[in-house]
Amino acid sequence: MKGNLVIGQSGGPTMVINESLVGVVKEAIKHEEFTGIYGSLHGIKGMLEGNFVDLRQESEEALEEIAKTPSSALGTVRLKPTEEQCRQVFDVFEEYGIKYFFYIGGNDSAETCHIINEVAREHNYELRVFHIPKTIDNDLKVNDFCPGYPSAARYVAQSFMGNDLDNRALPGVKIDIVMGRHAGWLTAASALARQHEGDGPHLIYVPERSISVEKFVADIDAMYEKHGRCLVAVSEGVVGEDGEPIAKALIGNTDSHGNLQLSGSGALGDLLVKYVEDHTKHDDMRVRTDTLGYAQRSFLGVRSEFDAKTARMVGAEAVKYALKGDIDGSVTIRRIGEGKEAVCETDLVKLREVAKHTQDLPDEFIAESGNDITQSFIDYAKPIVGELPKKGKLALNKVHKK
Amino acid sequence: MKGNLVIGQSGGPTMVINESLVGVVKEAIKHEEFTGIYGSLHGIKGMLEGNFVDLRQESEEALEEIAKTPSSALGTVRLKPTEEQCRQVFDVFEEYGIKYFFYIGGNDSAETCHIINEVAREHNYELRVFHIPKTIDNDLKVNDFCPGYPSAARYVAQSFMGNDLDNRALPGVKIDIVMGRHAGWLTAASALARQHEGDGPHLIYVPERSISVEKFVADIDAMYEKHGRCLVAVSEGVVGEDGEPIAKALIGNTDSHGNLQLSGSGALGDLLVKYVEDHTKHDDMRVRTDTLGYAQRSFLGVRSEFDAKTARMVGAEAVKYALKGDIDGSVTIRRIGEGKEAVCETDLVKLREVAKHTQDLPDEFIAESGNDITQSFIDYAKPIVGELPKKGKLALNKVHKK
Repeated sequence: MKGNLVIGQSGGPTMVINESLVGVVKEAIKHEEFTGIYGSLHGIKGMLEGNFVDLRQESEEALEEIAKTPSSALGTVRLKPTEEQCRQVFDVFEEYGIKYFFYIGGNDSAETCHIINEVAREHNYELRVFHIPKTIDNDLKVNDFCPGYPSAARYVAQSFMGNDLDNRALPGVKIDIVMGRHAGWLTAASALARQHEGDGPHLIYVPERSISVEKFVADIDAMYEKHGRCLVAVSEGVVGEDGEPIAKALIGNTDSHGNLQLSGSGALGDLLVKYVEDHTKHDDMRVRTDTLGYAQRSFLGVRSEFDAKTARMVGAEAVKYALKGDIDGSVTIRRIGEGKEAVCETDLVKLREVAKHTQDLPDEFIAESGNDITQSFIDYAKPIVGELPKKGKLALNKVHKK
Repeated sequence: MKGNLVIGQSGGPTMVINESLVGVVKEAIKHEEFTGIYGSLHGIKGMLEGNFVDLRQESEEALEEIAKTPSSALGTVRLKPTEEQCRQVFDVFEEYGIKYFFYIGGNDSAETCHIINEVAREHNYELRVFHIPKTIDNDLKVNDFCPGYPSAARYVAQSFMGNDLDNRALPGVKIDIVMGRHAGWLTAASALARQHEGDGPHLIYVPERSISVEKFVADIDAMYEKHGRCLVAVSEGVVGEDGEPIAKALIGNTDSHGNLQLSGSGALGDLLVKYVEDHTKHDDMRVRTDTLGYAQRSFLGVRSEFDAKTARMVGAEAVKYALKGDIDGSVTIRRIGEGKEAVCETDLVKLREVAKHTQDLPDEFIAESGNDITQSFIDYAKPIVGELPKKGKLALNKVHKK
């Protein structure tokens, strides 16, 4: 079937989302089924407005350079379209002769693909719709991992390695806030920073386990007594025992920050620092915080090559599925082999299997204490994150007075 | 003169401070003048307590690995000793037969070196005391640049490159807070992130120029109208027109955050976001913030090789000066040649020339508007920061409806 192809990028940027874009474009160029190869600017927004760019006019060199560049080259959008908007998108597709639609995004994007294809079916319009997985949150169903996650995890691990070295040199308590509103995958990656005895993070809190602020302070005090310092990883999505975001309880306690949102802000870290300072047993304990921020999804200069390769591959695979006669689906990732031998293959599953719901960290990855991550998670994450830089360490043998 | 050598690290960690440590140790090992080669744990604190480690027992491999590792391998301290404490340090030195003292740090460390040597002179004790420059703030007098700064500047530049790509994909206002309490060197490095037309940061605020919050919002509104987005670099040390930290004025305006310190916290960014949201002309403007945090001084995986080479060299040079018969001094850096041809040489200057005072950004590096950095700064910084990763860019030629 001949027709125009459109591709869009949705949701938060990642360090390798442009690999998937280039994977689609470079595979599509090879096949005469695709007449125009269009990019939609800012995802669904460009589709609603017919704001398309001609990707056939991009040079091979520009494509290879953009593949290595973080963030979404076509622009992105945080918009989950209504059914009415999906109907409008279909009208635009019809107008532009678009027969192939590829959407790189998370579970909401899979849902959008699903609705648009339902509308096309109603109109007996043959549209081929494919969802290409992407999210630093790693919370898509069916997939072994999501492209974008290993690179973000790598940034988190390298950040914690540096923070641990910093905290060792200048001892105190350091609380680092990690992205992940509903699932703890990215926060768990902080555990990859441990290379030597006593290395931090010494405590890791994920949204899958509720915490009490009292227990949080007691945990920190205990680690501070043991190590003379304490590095803590906290997911921005941690919830209290009432199931509400922990920041809510803290605002009650501190009577400040009341008007601040919790993303793109340092408020949660600041609230935790203040609570710990007010409630620790140790008067002289120095408590600081960093919120790792957008660098987790778009820092230029850190990425997992395994991630990049997989992201490129799922883009190309989506095009191949479209040519095989598949009407729609979500490309998913299966890992084969272990450790350094691991390779990825894809399957095509129904859009609904990936849409809507998310995948939490499984129980086996969370320590029973609820404040740490298990070796099983390390075994899962290491091969996809790749070899990390090594932290040096001196023996530091004491000199005795003569 | 035969005797024991002690080396310490002081102040904030950097990504290359261990290169200087290894530079000292590997040079000292070659010369029989040095009997013991000791490291003082946590800088002056270890010297007060006689808490020394034997660096002769470290393997060549461990030394080379630690050189590549950020943060201070011997531990560090934020303590500017009193004259009384300097006298105590001298007593410990006498007790341990220490004849050579090397201290890696900023201007306070140079001052400490100066006082300890005055005490030694009083006692007719031949002590050789050398200050080795280090600070991510780049604010030491006499030096062309300070080891630690180019690597921190590189992290800042790569961080802003990613943040600019992110902001381009998901347009809005993003305010990033950069370290540098008194001088704008590190914030200025954000300008290195610009590679293409329209790239951010679009506004850069340094402590050398006071700002009014009204002008700050007006600047952002103007850039937002021009680019449809705005990325802003703000030094944590920016001051208002009254010469007081800008955060103080903002607390007055927002009546929150009153109890929070400004370092190791996201408070300044959050206050600026709130002020901009409350005062912008654009109702739908999305404003977010990140505080770059400790990663600027200790992230594992980003450093300038020029910086690393210079840091190693100043360590070795300090030892050579000590052997040449110089009694004391601060090793300073002179740059010879331009661009990629640049190399560094050292001089030895009096400790007092580097102690106490700091070096602000010169006027020629700050745009007349007071909200940007000049090409002169870029020419200064590029050779020491090194080649940065390239940001890809697509042509994005529009598709026209048939």
